Amino acid sequence: MRLTELDTPCLLLDLDRVEWNIARMAAFFAERPAKLRPHFKTPKTPEVARRQLAAGAIGITVAKLGEAEVLADAGLGPILVANQVVGAPKLRRLVTLLARGVDITVAVESEANVREIAAAAREAGVTAQAIIEVDSGMHRCGTVSPAETVALARLLGESGIRYRGIMGYEGHAVLLPAEERQLKAEAALTIVSAHVEALLEAGLAPEIVSVGGTGTYAIAGSWPGVTEVQAGSYVFMDGRYQQMLPVEFESALTLLTTVIAVRGEYAVCDAGMKSLTNEFGAPKSVDGRLVASRLSEEHAHLTGEGVAGLAVGDRVEILPSHGDTTLNLNSVYHVRRGDEVVAEWPILGARKYH
Amino acid sequence: MRLTELDTPCLLLDLDRVEWNIARMAAFFAERPAKLRPHFKTPKTPEVARRQLAAGAIGITVAKLGEAEVLADAGLGPILVANQVVGAPKLRRLVTLLARGVDITVAVESEANVREIAAAAREAGVTAQAIIEVDSGMHRCGTVSPAETVALARLLGESGIRYRGIMGYEGHAVLLPAEERQLKAEAALTIVSAHVEALLEAGLAPEIVSVGGTGTYAIAGSWPGVTEVQAGSYVFMDGRYQQMLPVEFESALTLLTTVIAVRGEYAVCDAGMKSLTNEFGAPKSVDGRLVASRLSEEHAHLTGEGVAGLAVGDRVEILPSHGDTTLNLNSVYHVRRGDEVVAEWPILGARKYH
Repeated sequence: MRLTELDTPCLLLDLDRVEWNIARMAAFFAERPAKLRPHFKTPKTPEVARRQLAAGAIGITVAKLGEAEVLADAGLGPILVANQVVGAPKLRRLVTLLARGVDITVAVESEANVREIAAAAREAGVTAQAIIEVDSGMHRCGTVSPAETVALARLLGESGIRYRGIMGYEGHAVLLPAEERQLKAEAALTIVSAHVEALLEAGLAPEIVSVGGTGTYAIAGSWPGVTEVQAGSYVFMDGRYQQMLPVEFESALTLLTTVIAVRGEYAVCDAGMKSLTNEFGAPKSVDGRLVASRLSEEHAHLTGEGVAGLAVGDRVEILPSHGDTTLNLNSVYHVRRGDEVVAEWPILGARKYH
Repeated sequence: MRLTELDTPCLLLDLDRVEWNIARMAAFFAERPAKLRPHFKTPKTPEVARRQLAAGAIGITVAKLGEAEVLADAGLGPILVANQVVGAPKLRRLVTLLARGVDITVAVESEANVREIAAAAREAGVTAQAIIEVDSGMHRCGTVSPAETVALARLLGESGIRYRGIMGYEGHAVLLPAEERQLKAEAALTIVSAHVEALLEAGLAPEIVSVGGTGTYAIAGSWPGVTEVQAGSYVFMDGRYQQMLPVEFESALTLLTTVIAVRGEYAVCDAGMKSLTNEFGAPKSVDGRLVASRLSEEHAHLTGEGVAGLAVGDRVEILPSHGDTTLNLNSVYHVRRGDEVVAEWPILGARKYH
């Protein structure tokens, strides 16, 4: 099938570029002690995760249990849930995965959560595995003091949960300008190192020290003591990251739209906030000549120098400014090589998966 | 099943409130010449549309062909697509519906679109039906001058498309404060009336004059010459509309979340921008004591006076500030009567439907 035959709005995924990004990141980690455990929140398809593992990734990181279930069903892992799994319904799902023999580790950051995981695992007769999430400056979840981290690590052992290490995520740094990003990332990694130090002193050496994102992979991947990096967005890149990291990776994900109305100063296309997001700024067309300057639910206003040449029925290919939330609004990737659609990959682990 | 057994994040739909809203709006239109053709973009489930039709609605309005297909499969209609259907892939779907005998009318606003619809219908041996969309001040799609509207109406007839009338949508007015809303809505409806006048003078009396939204239904439903109103959001209401229309309708749609971390000044729950939107402002908890003040992809920071009492594992019920885009991120309504879950309704016409 040719691109021109596709109905719109629809996501296009450039497989040549995905492969380039995977190879590029794999090459970086091939030379280092730290390894890559790429984040599944970006691709949400085992097709990409399988290629990342084949290129040397040591496992897959996920944001939630629904994504872990998708990977488990595809036989991919080992899986790290870089988030808390809280409450009885989710713990039933976690112990089900463990009982299936899935190698899955979750992040913990509170005593209450450790105790409920331990109780659920005990009742199901399985051994849970956990790392401790540290707040390295993003101020979301995570332990605050090294003493708290040491206490939680001890509690894991006492509770029959396999203690595996710690994680931090310098999400407050990943999208900053280069110099500021370096400083904030180093400050965050210094915090993680202090927690590692305290664990070592307590005789609780972490097997896993997981940090980093696409904006900080090079800093995090070279930091002493870091064993793995969770970068995910690099595999597709998006408009926002493309501004920050212009050299290393290629933007692979775009949204194909159709012009449905043309006025003097603007045109309107058929993708709105129900298929495209703008929290990272107004998305632009791939050629940079059009801006999706106003989103309704099912419409975008297109403005910019490219408007003059547009007619009703024209196709406009838009680079999402935030790929992760845009793909979460869609259900399938139309996988392209050039102008040819070579596959359709369902986007899993999105809406219907908690 | 009880609410407490549900996994989170998940949407709850209060059926008592939905029924109240449907009855309340039906009562308004029962006394008027204008009728209600409620918008399907809000409920996205035939379960609600069927109840609206049973209460007297004369049909259903949709935003896109995917929603029309959901209704057609459920045997519900007649359907008005309050949007342009542009391009060969979509026109194939439109003529397929027409060939199935579905009563569907689309909105047109350009000569190019009328010509392609006519060609597709001719080739398929079906009769398409259309109304003309007028720009009544929102400056999105729609004809600008009455002369343009008359010319398009003539072109419809010449092209073998059944001309049925016109529509305008005063979307720029629906969420304004009451007084300003009244003025802007009246200005918009005056524009629509001018187009109607021109059509009447040209001997092209419109059978359908469709306008209005939840914020303007009372003004639009009482406007001379208006035959139907497209209001949709009233059936669930959301945080933003609740601020504007505090009396008439009840908020029926909420997102149930679980607290996964607690800090001094904030807590974190398990719903982020992948299940909850904030383009209409930060959503609040149903009791108003917590604000989802910062959204990550899978987390929300909860702040406000309610934080003090929170513990890991607590449930927080959030009223979406924008219901339509929030439900578009989810896949199922957990339908409640009080604390009991009485049904699960899939949310159709969302992601996978163009």
